[in-house]
Order: sequence, then C-alpha cells, then structure tokens
Amino acid sequence: MTTSAHPATATDADLHTEVEHYYARQMQLLDRRSCDEWAATFAPDGVFDANGLPAPAKGRAAIAAAAKAAGDRLAAEGLVHRHWLGMLTVTAQPDGSVSARSYALVIQTQLGGASVLHRSTVCEDRLVRGEDGSLLVLDRKVTRDDIA
Amino acid sequence: MTTSAHPATATDADLHTEVEHYYARQMQLLDRRSCDEWAATFAPDGVFDANGLPAPAKGRAAIAAAAKAAGDRLAAEGLVHRHWLGMLTVTAQPDGSVSARSYALVIQTQLGGASVLHRSTVCEDRLVRGEDGSLLVLDRKVTRDDIA
Amino acid sequence: MTTSAHPATATDADLHTEVEHYYARQMQLLDRRSCDEWAATFAPDGVFDANGLPAPAKGRAAIAAAAKAAGDRLAAEGLVHRHWLGMLTVTAQPDGSVSARSYALVIQTQLGGASVLHRSTVCEDRLVRGEDGSLLVLDRKVTRDDIA
Repeated sequence: MTTSAHPATATDADLHTEVEHYYARQMQLLDRRSCDEWAATFAPDGVFDANGLPAPAKGRAAIAAAAKAAGDRLAAEGLVHRHWLGMLTVTAQPDGSVSARSYALVIQTQLGGASVLHRSTVCEDRLVRGEDGSLLVLDRKVTRDDIA
Repeated sequence: MTTSAHPATATDADLHTEVEHYYARQMQLLDRRSCDEWAATFAPDGVFDANGLPAPAKGRAAIAAAAKAAGDRLAAEGLVHRHWLGMLTVTAQPDGSVSARSYALVIQTQLGGASVLHRSTVCEDRLVRGEDGSLLVLDRKVTRDDIA
Repeated sequence: MTTSAHPATATDADLHTEVEHYYARQMQLLDRRSCDEWAATFAPDGVFDANGLPAPAKGRAAIAAAAKAAGDRLAAEGLVHRHWLGMLTVTAQPDGSVSARSYALVIQTQLGGASVLHRSTVCEDRLVRGEDGSLLVLDRKVTRDDIA
C-alpha cells in the first residue's frame, strides 16, 4: 500500500468528463423534445436498440421519429420525462471509438401530480467522432432492469 | 465520420468538473442545514427563484432564512432531504460568467420509514466568481416539473 | 465580485473525476455480483461499515462474502439493485489519502415489476492508493437516512 501520486492521466479524466457532458446535452435535448437535435447526436447510421422496443431504430430519421412519437404520447397524457445517466465508465478503444456503460433512470412527473421512478436501465454505447471531432453514438443498447 | 483526437480542451473539462464539485458542496451544505454556509455560496446580491415559491429570495440573509425555515419544518416532521443535481451542462459566457443547466431531484426520507422521490426540477444558474475566484450563484431559477 | 479565471487546478479536477470513475466501476462490479472484483476495490485490510449492519465487514474476504450473501438473497427474490453515487466531494489529505463524501441511492427493480427507490444513504470513504497507484477504500461508513 502506498500513497503515491495518482496515475490517472489528464487525458483519461478529460475523456470521462467529455462523455458525461455530452450525455447531459443529449438527455436535455431528448427531454425538451428537440427530436432532430437529439437524433443529430447519433452517427448518421447510428442504431438505438432497447429490450423494451419491438425493433431497433436505425439512422437519424428513424431515431428522431421514435423520439417524436414518444414525446407526443407523453405530452398528450400531461407527463414529463427526465432521463438521468450515471455511474458512467468509459474505455477508449484502439480504433479510436469509445465504449461507455452507464445506468439510466427515467423520472416521470404528472403535471399537477407526483414524480415517480419510471424505469431503471443500463445503457451501453459505442461512441465515435464526427468530422468536427464531436462525439456521436454509433450503437446504443438500453436494457431495462425489469425485463430478464 | 472520423475517429480523430477529441476536441474538448482540458479547460472545458476542468470547468465542468469544477461546477459539479461546487454543486456537490453546495447541496451537502443545504442538506446538513448549514444555512449560512449555504447562503455564502450565493453572491451577496444573489437571487434564488423557483416556480414553487411565492416570491424570490434576494440576498444572502433572505436565502439563509428561507433555508432555515424549510429545514426547521422538515426536522419537526422527522424528514430528511437530499438534493441531487445531475445532467449538468455548462457554458462559459464572454463576460466571464458561467451558465449552468441541470436537473435536480429532492429525495425525501421519513425517519423510521421510506425514501421517496419528492420533486423533479430543472435548475438554471448564472454563476460568477468571488474575489478569491470561487464560484457563486448570481441568479438561480428552479422549475418544478409538476407545475406547467 | 470579479469574473477572473477560475482557480481550480487541473489536478483538483482530475482527482474528482478519477474518484467518480472509480466509484462507477466499483458500483457496476457490485451490481453485477462480481463479488471478488468488488472486494478487490477495497484495501486488503479495508473496512465496510454501515448503520444498517449488525457489524462491520473487515478485510476483502469478509467484504466479498457479505456482497455474495446479499446478492444471493436478491437473486432468489427476483430483485435487481443499482447503486448510484452522487453529489461527491473529495479532499486530498496531507498523508496522501483522499477523503470522499457522497450520497448513495439504491434503486430496486422487481423482475416483471416496478422500480422503486429502496434506500437513501450518505457514504463517507477514506481512499488510499495500491502499489499500482489505483484507488482503494481503506474505510467506508454508510449511513442510512431512515435511521436517526
């Protein structure tokens, strides 16, 4: 046991923080129902899959349409969703992509009513960089804890 | 699509982490009922506003008094509150201030009883720096999700 | 009031992010029931104490055994736990150790059923470095909010 200087490089820390900030922006876009901007945080050929969905959404148009349909249903019912990601681990891959695993909660509030914990899930992403260097989801898999 | 080096500067990442750490200290002070220290994390002329309050609290004395009144009510009822901030986005402004937007939850626990999700809110802050360089809230607006 | 350059050093920010990433890995190991790997994130003579436990677990073997027993009980009941840490403050100590205080939630999901907020707690750690420089818990104290 020693108490030597810590080994995490600034690069490690910066990448973790960059992914965290990227996810915060992404979830705020989704919850604001900025569906096209939300879809633009995925790669053009990005895939969103979840064990609670009948089929994956492939490509930005499909991802935007799925978000819009879900947002319209919530609005019609007077519900507000907030997506929280946390307990994030990131691993830079040799090919330049980034593997990220996190927990994700959906907090649901009824207008004029109560807030409840709607879903507990695990989110596994492969992230790549767009031409301007910004992060994009190439592949997302969301696994609900209530589905075995 | 490329996998080039990521564009986030260390400065970007450091500011995000600094704000996150500042919020963690601030929420711990509030939940410990260290009301004067909580108020000192606001600018002397700082404003705390919320759509669930009858009027904004302006200045440190008013902010401390509001926290004390709320804390006293909770203690009398045997309730513990924990404020969680997350999904934080920060933007450095040209004038040196920082805009921060985050989600905030209030977790409420009854002594000898259950923990529940009490509130889901959005917190929008303008942060400035005190003379020693530390962050201070100049203006906070908290919006409860259950109030349209 | 000034808006001068922020005073947080890269080292401060990097340590905060390093501890956050370490906790994310640690909680993912616990929730995956990787009990030996979970125990290896503690110092060989590490202590896990909680006001909800009859006695502290001392040393990696005891810490792994306690996690396995808890995980087996959950699996038998069809329950999934996710441990979320947040509102983390870290303080580097003169002796090279790190004091960390955070909030911790346990989110519990019934397979085929609902997700609920199971516990709200405060987690206080003393962290040290192993021979390879990685962080290890020397001493952890978890305090449930529902126990006075």
